[in-house]
Amino acid sequence: MNEMTVRAIGAVRADDAKGYYALEVDEAYREGLLALKEFGRVNALWWAHGMDTPEFRGTLSCELPYAPGVRAGVFACRSEYRPNPIALTSCGVLSVDVDKGLVTLDYIDAVDGTPLLDIKPYIPVCDRAREFRVAPWFREWPDCIEDSAAFFAKFEF
Amino acid sequence: MNEMTVRAIGAVRADDAKGYYALEVDEAYREGLLALKEFGRVNALWWAHGMDTPEFRGTLSCELPYAPGVRAGVFACRSEYRPNPIALTSCGVLSVDVDKGLVTLDYIDAVDGTPLLDIKPYIPVCDRAREFRVAPWFREWPDCIEDSAAFFAKFEF
Repeated sequence: MNEMTVRAIGAVRADDAKGYYALEVDEAYREGLLALKEFGRVNALWWAHGMDTPEFRGTLSCELPYAPGVRAGVFACRSEYRPNPIALTSCGVLSVDVDKGLVTLDYIDAVDGTPLLDIKPYIPVCDRAREFRVAPWFREWPDCIEDSAAFFAKFEF
Repeated sequence: MNEMTVRAIGAVRADDAKGYYALEVDEAYREGLLALKEFGRVNALWWAHGMDTPEFRGTLSCELPYAPGVRAGVFACRSEYRPNPIALTSCGVLSVDVDKGLVTLDYIDAVDGTPLLDIKPYIPVCDRAREFRVAPWFREWPDCIEDSAAFFAKFEF
């Protein structure tokens, strides 16, 4: 038996028109937010529920939309279709309200209502690489999260 | 219905005595490793199976071993006991063998045999923060992953 069960701890709130992004944590889990306000950034794990089908979970490689002609495995890209449709986004934290279960964010690339699985503080010793080596198709991309918004604003997917 | 199913795609191999660390991907999923050799670092998601009990999954806050007297929520620390015991480790990649399903690593903080859930390439625009703000108890910790080994070698947990 090789299956495990995960549960939503809350949901993503996203309103692109208003520029509002948040993690809404269910009442039963709000104690887990204690002291989170001490951190300026979190790693959010969310369930790409639109991809939770046998077809998408069985897709193992794809042509990269940003690198025509390149076929990459799902473990070599951040595609939401993968055997376990768990996505990871590093988000800047604007505020934390433990009582309301609300963590407001600068941005998250998940649609409104997406099931939230976990929140982890972004800790440099765990998450922040000084050096890196990426595939040729990423070499012209920005070298840090802070420059992502301006970059993706220009991007046509 | 708020439960989702995840499956192991392979297992962590870890031998501290030999300094050997790897992700072993099951045959059915090896195509997913195509092009991963182009990346120098991955984010590994693994299932903290020793913590997959109602007691550990119901723990929402704890006293931090590295910050005596501080109680933090599980979403404000990297503890393996959390509602969904999914751990995230950023690892340097030494080699990728698609046919054998083997990704050798510089290090991973998971025990041998740990179920592996996902592998994502570490991409600076997604994962690498230029700036950061952390809780006071982390301010003396290194500011990047590369300095973690030397730091933790001195640490007594």
